[in-house]
Amino acid sequence: MAIIAVDMDEVIADALGKHLDSYNNHFGKSITREDLIGTHLRHVVPVEHQDVVEQFIRAEEFFADLPVMKDAQRVLQKLSKEHSIFIASAAMEVPTSFTAKFEWMKIHFPFVSPMNIVFCGDKSILNADYLIDDNARHFPRFRGQGILFDAPHNVKVTGYPRVKSWKEVEAYFARINQGAIVSTR
Amino acid sequence: MAIIAVDMDEVIADALGKHLDSYNNHFGKSITREDLIGTHLRHVVPVEHQDVVEQFIRAEEFFADLPVMKDAQRVLQKLSKEHSIFIASAAMEVPTSFTAKFEWMKIHFPFVSPMNIVFCGDKSILNADYLIDDNARHFPRFRGQGILFDAPHNVKVTGYPRVKSWKEVEAYFARINQGAIVSTR
Repeated sequence: MAIIAVDMDEVIADALGKHLDSYNNHFGKSITREDLIGTHLRHVVPVEHQDVVEQFIRAEEFFADLPVMKDAQRVLQKLSKEHSIFIASAAMEVPTSFTAKFEWMKIHFPFVSPMNIVFCGDKSILNADYLIDDNARHFPRFRGQGILFDAPHNVKVTGYPRVKSWKEVEAYFARINQGAIVSTR
Repeated sequence: MAIIAVDMDEVIADALGKHLDSYNNHFGKSITREDLIGTHLRHVVPVEHQDVVEQFIRAEEFFADLPVMKDAQRVLQKLSKEHSIFIASAAMEVPTSFTAKFEWMKIHFPFVSPMNIVFCGDKSILNADYLIDDNARHFPRFRGQGILFDAPHNVKVTGYPRVKSWKEVEAYFARINQGAIVSTR
């Protein structure tokens, strides 16, 4: 049994999809994920749009109805039978999001105990064996194995195993169970 | 340098003091800390008061203006010069308290980075060397050394070093620095 910590935004919750929709609808644009390869939305919009782009995610309700990433529920439920799953979100960047994120978890991942939800900015505090996250900045000081969840902004990041979907997460841990991967922890 | 995780309620924030005041004022009673030796407020009040007692701490504003425990600021600031301090609160028991607790930290402990505030129910997820907490239930599965912060409800708990004040916390870590205590971690 391993302890697996899982990030929320861009890993189990499609925050970028909603952010793009909000931006495109508001300004009549059609920016896509492909336009954000190696960068972030705030860096590709005109300077005069940046404040509004920030405001979208600072609105308390932004996090209340995020779409769930494909296969995240099925694979996490499966993994939770063998492993200890913690959901770890850096909600400190948008403190108004705590309650919305907590409620979202209860609705979409009812099999994860509320006791296993962690809000923390510095993820080096996590005593876990694996951390599935789209932000590699958390990995160097993390005590376990970082697993990079593919996102437009991180396509150029190397040095960590990359998973492009929850099906690939499923396959990764199936290989670990077979002893094909030895954790670098 | 050690990583020291510190609980909020009853350790740096006097939640019990406010809870007692709220109860006594509301019902015209005079329950004291001494009346709660080995127990909790909800267990000593009449059954018909229990709902109201619970409601006090479920009110979002309850956590907004808690008094700071004596010497907590001075000693934590001192410890933060040598150690890495994380504040770890099990806010999941009262999810409406996230934002109020986060704001309270910014006001009273501005020297603790918001990135070092952790909200988690199961504190075994903390990758810390020490955990200062009034609830010993977190200690058996914690990877480091639990330090029991004295509170009426825990007076009968044994098996962990007990500190009765922040001055005693200061003395505990001074002894560690002198090599007089070897962590059991």
